[in-house]
Amino acid sequence: MSTYTAMVMNEPGALPAPVTRPIPEPGPTEVVVRLRATSMNYHDLVNLKGSIRGGPWPRVPMSDGAGEIAAVGNAVRSLRVGDRVVAAFSPRWLNGVATPRTRGDVLGDTRDGCLQQYLCIEESAVARTPLHLSDAEAATIPCAGVTAWTSLRGADVKAGDVVVAQGTGGVSLYVVQLAKAAGATVILTSSSDAKLDVGKSLGADHLVNYRTHPEWHKAVRELTGGEGADLVVDVGGVDTLAKSILATKMGGSIAIVGVLGGFGMAEIPYTTVMMQMQHVFGVAVGSAADLVALNAAMAATHIVPQISHHLDWTQIPEAMRVLGAQGHIGKIAITIV
Amino acid sequence: MSTYTAMVMNEPGALPAPVTRPIPEPGPTEVVVRLRATSMNYHDLVNLKGSIRGGPWPRVPMSDGAGEIAAVGNAVRSLRVGDRVVAAFSPRWLNGVATPRTRGDVLGDTRDGCLQQYLCIEESAVARTPLHLSDAEAATIPCAGVTAWTSLRGADVKAGDVVVAQGTGGVSLYVVQLAKAAGATVILTSSSDAKLDVGKSLGADHLVNYRTHPEWHKAVRELTGGEGADLVVDVGGVDTLAKSILATKMGGSIAIVGVLGGFGMAEIPYTTVMMQMQHVFGVAVGSAADLVALNAAMAATHIVPQISHHLDWTQIPEAMRVLGAQGHIGKIAITIV
Amino acid sequence: MSTYTAMVMNEPGALPAPVTRPIPEPGPTEVVVRLRATSMNYHDLVNLKGSIRGGPWPRVPMSDGAGEIAAVGNAVRSLRVGDRVVAAFSPRWLNGVATPRTRGDVLGDTRDGCLQQYLCIEESAVARTPLHLSDAEAATIPCAGVTAWTSLRGADVKAGDVVVAQGTGGVSLYVVQLAKAAGATVILTSSSDAKLDVGKSLGADHLVNYRTHPEWHKAVRELTGGEGADLVVDVGGVDTLAKSILATKMGGSIAIVGVLGGFGMAEIPYTTVMMQMQHVFGVAVGSAADLVALNAAMAATHIVPQISHHLDWTQIPEAMRVLGAQGHIGKIAITIV
Amino acid sequence: MSTYTAMVMNEPGALPAPVTRPIPEPGPTEVVVRLRATSMNYHDLVNLKGSIRGGPWPRVPMSDGAGEIAAVGNAVRSLRVGDRVVAAFSPRWLNGVATPRTRGDVLGDTRDGCLQQYLCIEESAVARTPLHLSDAEAATIPCAGVTAWTSLRGADVKAGDVVVAQGTGGVSLYVVQLAKAAGATVILTSSSDAKLDVGKSLGADHLVNYRTHPEWHKAVRELTGGEGADLVVDVGGVDTLAKSILATKMGGSIAIVGVLGGFGMAEIPYTTVMMQMQHVFGVAVGSAADLVALNAAMAATHIVPQISHHLDWTQIPEAMRVLGAQGHIGKIAITIV
Repeated sequence: MSTYTAMVMNEPGALPAPVTRPIPEPGPTEVVVRLRATSMNYHDLVNLKGSIRGGPWPRVPMSDGAGEIAAVGNAVRSLRVGDRVVAAFSPRWLNGVATPRTRGDVLGDTRDGCLQQYLCIEESAVARTPLHLSDAEAATIPCAGVTAWTSLRGADVKAGDVVVAQGTGGVSLYVVQLAKAAGATVILTSSSDAKLDVGKSLGADHLVNYRTHPEWHKAVRELTGGEGADLVVDVGGVDTLAKSILATKMGGSIAIVGVLGGFGMAEIPYTTVMMQMQHVFGVAVGSAADLVALNAAMAATHIVPQISHHLDWTQIPEAMRVLGAQGHIGKIAITIV
Repeated sequence: MSTYTAMVMNEPGALPAPVTRPIPEPGPTEVVVRLRATSMNYHDLVNLKGSIRGGPWPRVPMSDGAGEIAAVGNAVRSLRVGDRVVAAFSPRWLNGVATPRTRGDVLGDTRDGCLQQYLCIEESAVARTPLHLSDAEAATIPCAGVTAWTSLRGADVKAGDVVVAQGTGGVSLYVVQLAKAAGATVILTSSSDAKLDVGKSLGADHLVNYRTHPEWHKAVRELTGGEGADLVVDVGGVDTLAKSILATKMGGSIAIVGVLGGFGMAEIPYTTVMMQMQHVFGVAVGSAADLVALNAAMAATHIVPQISHHLDWTQIPEAMRVLGAQGHIGKIAITIV
Repeated sequence: MSTYTAMVMNEPGALPAPVTRPIPEPGPTEVVVRLRATSMNYHDLVNLKGSIRGGPWPRVPMSDGAGEIAAVGNAVRSLRVGDRVVAAFSPRWLNGVATPRTRGDVLGDTRDGCLQQYLCIEESAVARTPLHLSDAEAATIPCAGVTAWTSLRGADVKAGDVVVAQGTGGVSLYVVQLAKAAGATVILTSSSDAKLDVGKSLGADHLVNYRTHPEWHKAVRELTGGEGADLVVDVGGVDTLAKSILATKMGGSIAIVGVLGGFGMAEIPYTTVMMQMQHVFGVAVGSAADLVALNAAMAATHIVPQISHHLDWTQIPEAMRVLGAQGHIGKIAITIV
Repeated sequence: MSTYTAMVMNEPGALPAPVTRPIPEPGPTEVVVRLRATSMNYHDLVNLKGSIRGGPWPRVPMSDGAGEIAAVGNAVRSLRVGDRVVAAFSPRWLNGVATPRTRGDVLGDTRDGCLQQYLCIEESAVARTPLHLSDAEAATIPCAGVTAWTSLRGADVKAGDVVVAQGTGGVSLYVVQLAKAAGATVILTSSSDAKLDVGKSLGADHLVNYRTHPEWHKAVRELTGGEGADLVVDVGGVDTLAKSILATKMGGSIAIVGVLGGFGMAEIPYTTVMMQMQHVFGVAVGSAADLVALNAAMAATHIVPQISHHLDWTQIPEAMRVLGAQGHIGKIAITIV
């Protein structure tokens, strides 16, 4: 068979619809991946709703993708047909610090993404899948997993540090698992005791229900002997950033990774940042090298990501509904037939 | 003579008044410094106005101090009588990252400061004065100089980087001089062309009058080919922080070092921090090791700090008036007879 | 009772002999620790044999010490009588990078050490004992544990990294346990399969008997897909350093922490260091802040150090014999009555 | 004209001979550079003598190249025809830490280099030429300049640090100029007072003739008050590395950048590295991002590289002779007609 099915958005906000395309030939330094799974992130939801208008149209949405190599270009040396791989969120951001140019090219935004059976991509933009993971599990790594990883790495989290994760979304539960694997102590906040229980099963040491304890930052300080956390991974933005800063110790870090509270401006106690000599840093996923490093970490520590919903690619509307309603705990994985 | 004069605040907000005290004997690991100069920082102004109430009363204000060693304890090995030294802002913060304990002890706040003829202090809390500087010049280093130094070091400023300094206060002009000495390109903002001219004479490469160009962050982007600065040293807080973030490049840094806009909260475009993967970090002066390193840097690069007002210690009210009215350009040095 | 027993070396190489001393009074910022245990390191063996001649004589040997606070000075705020603590190897090296001055002052070398019932020491030079450890276990932390910790931190070891530990001495088995707690993969070398089994029980992933595989560096490369290790913690010096370099990946690190092969010079393939852009760094224990951080890490990860010999302080000659003959696996703990 | 002249080595050790080739068409993400200059490094000399046998044959030698863009691929956005650029030593090493794969591909070794009129290369592997430099001057940057730059950056050299440069070869004089531009104090060693004078004219603060002072490391310690240097950039390898270590302070760094003493093994005082907690790190040029950063640094600080010989591309044998006899001071620039 020399054709395949891609799910294509024809205009901003249009539901992806099947289109038959010829299976691509890889260029010399490219590979073609037979995709088996993707997963839905908040970023994908924004894209599917039509807010990322600037890219090419029509286009295939979804940034996460996992599968196996179907074909390799003639200059490809590191991969062979059959190798299981995941694709990097920003395929041109290979390593080190990003530039607007390398960060700006994103699967599903500025080029066709992963809601299709075949993806042609640079050899340097894929990473081997950890052996212990299924494709659906692996497909949760490139956006949510890497975001959690670069957050922890950005604060140089080490054994004995205290890390605060907020809620039970995909990034936050990755933070729980990766921080525990690094020997840290984890405090998890959520509005739901049932969700906190899932976090506890993944290793969270302390649970704070911010509905019953709206002053959750004070709970963090109490749990740390008054000192505050080494790192708070902030996913709420407007809703949480000020308290995240107040929950952090002198010399500690706050990673800004999410905008669940909405885009725009947030008020912060900036004199606290100054006097406590804190580091507030932004995380916008990570590089292909970060993806490789995370996969090595997951392989070494046998982490299996938390997936609450296994859907298939005909169920994109359902995935959007669940994510929009925050009905998920961890990740929503989507298989590609 | 076995007594000396100290200028003492008897209660919060009281003007310092002369008191005769016995010259102290150093403990085994202490030195006694015959102070010759201090300088006034915004922090001192706040203290003199009575806002730092928690310390011992009566107490000697002023954190900056320079002079020469008058006596050494019997276990002191690194210093001799006659050596010229400056005192560290937080005498117990020797090196590395601060803790509330090591940062919290501040000359003039939690113990007697430098508005006196003699200061007894730990050997580990003084640094040799750069040979090319007078005591009045050296007395501007411990608070303003070190704050500028740790801001630049916190962003790892290197030759070719672009640094933005705001205004012509003591910290900002140190930023100009130290950034130039590190090979950086400096953009200086001010409300006054006359003040900008002083900055230019100290090496600033580009000048932006934010009164005539209120959108100064756009000027910074234009001057950097659209890219933004590597580091903005923010001294305005509420008034400037949001624009400082918008003036910074992807992966760049914003140092929060001042609260000229007032204490409390500031609104920031946090989604910019996230998407541009910026580092916002707080600076609350620095350690004794930072002071030693800065003195080495000033000695090697022959920097002479910019002093607009030379006063003596009977003129504290005048110094307060000038600083409060922002009538200074650079530092206000105060000699001690 | 106002006197206690100290074991004192009267001259270089003399066996420690009991002396009765008055229990010291702490100075304002000092504490007196009722010591309950010490442990013997290679450094102590060298000292006991008389090779560290420069300190005061007579003196109490042994750098490691654990016990509980018996008295506190009147300015001590962070500790109370009864608190369990361990003492820092270099009491004046509080944080950050060492200087000859802060590194040079060592318990048992330049001042009285821990082979005594009471130790008077600076408040800033002790760290709280992890709750889950006995004093004998805790007494193995300050020299061997901290050396392993700073080796791993110096290479920024993270989950998924590959770390090589050499042999089953105290430092190396701490490397095994701490690296595993950080999520790393550990390769352990030894001349003895029985010793390797102990390492395996502590979490080592791969075992290499260098007697049967003298080209152990090639085994490391094979186990890492040809790439080499991220970090080799070299304890053999002359005997191992060249192969440690060859076992390391491009951009990887080699920590020089031991001199089991003797003092002096070692031949290294320096063109490999250059072309592979490796980092070779020396480790000479660590700071008080490193000790605090390690204790937090051990508390969070529940590591119990490996002790092969529990002796009491009358058995110093036996401890010296065992260590000299490398008859130990892990640490030799010594209780103080 | 649609053909051009390339100087081609037909086998290892064969002198480059002119060949007429068609001017290449750039691929979508490639540019074609009209080269105007190259420069000869020790690495090129080794290559020209035939020691780098593994690459394709015949091939164009020389890694350094400067010129202007003659054509761009249709996906190239950052460059236009006419832009002046220099080419990166390892075109696939874009940023961050190298891998064998990204470091291993070198102009002139594994693919055609710069001794030709036109070079087709990836857009991501060129950097804009500093405006104040001629092409001949700019052609000295990619190998020697970047090596000096990454050496200084690897030790985080800042104002006030003391840096030792060895001899007056291309890398070492770049070290002198870049270290001075960063505010450091520079100690330069050489066997010749005449060569030292050139170093002095470039800013070196202290000069040590190691012929008259073979114990030059002791001179370094004396010049630094007994403390030692912050960084020694070692170019001599076997001949110098041991003394470079002895010349370095506690916590200081030694960059291994050269093998002028020959390939292979070198003896080092490894117990000094351990006890002084030094960092010995290898430098093998740098990434394309390093080249971009260095060009920014040179533009900001107006550094003009030291060139002792201006030759043209018919004079390769003369360049080889001069470099082999160490008759140069700084760089040997070679123009391409």
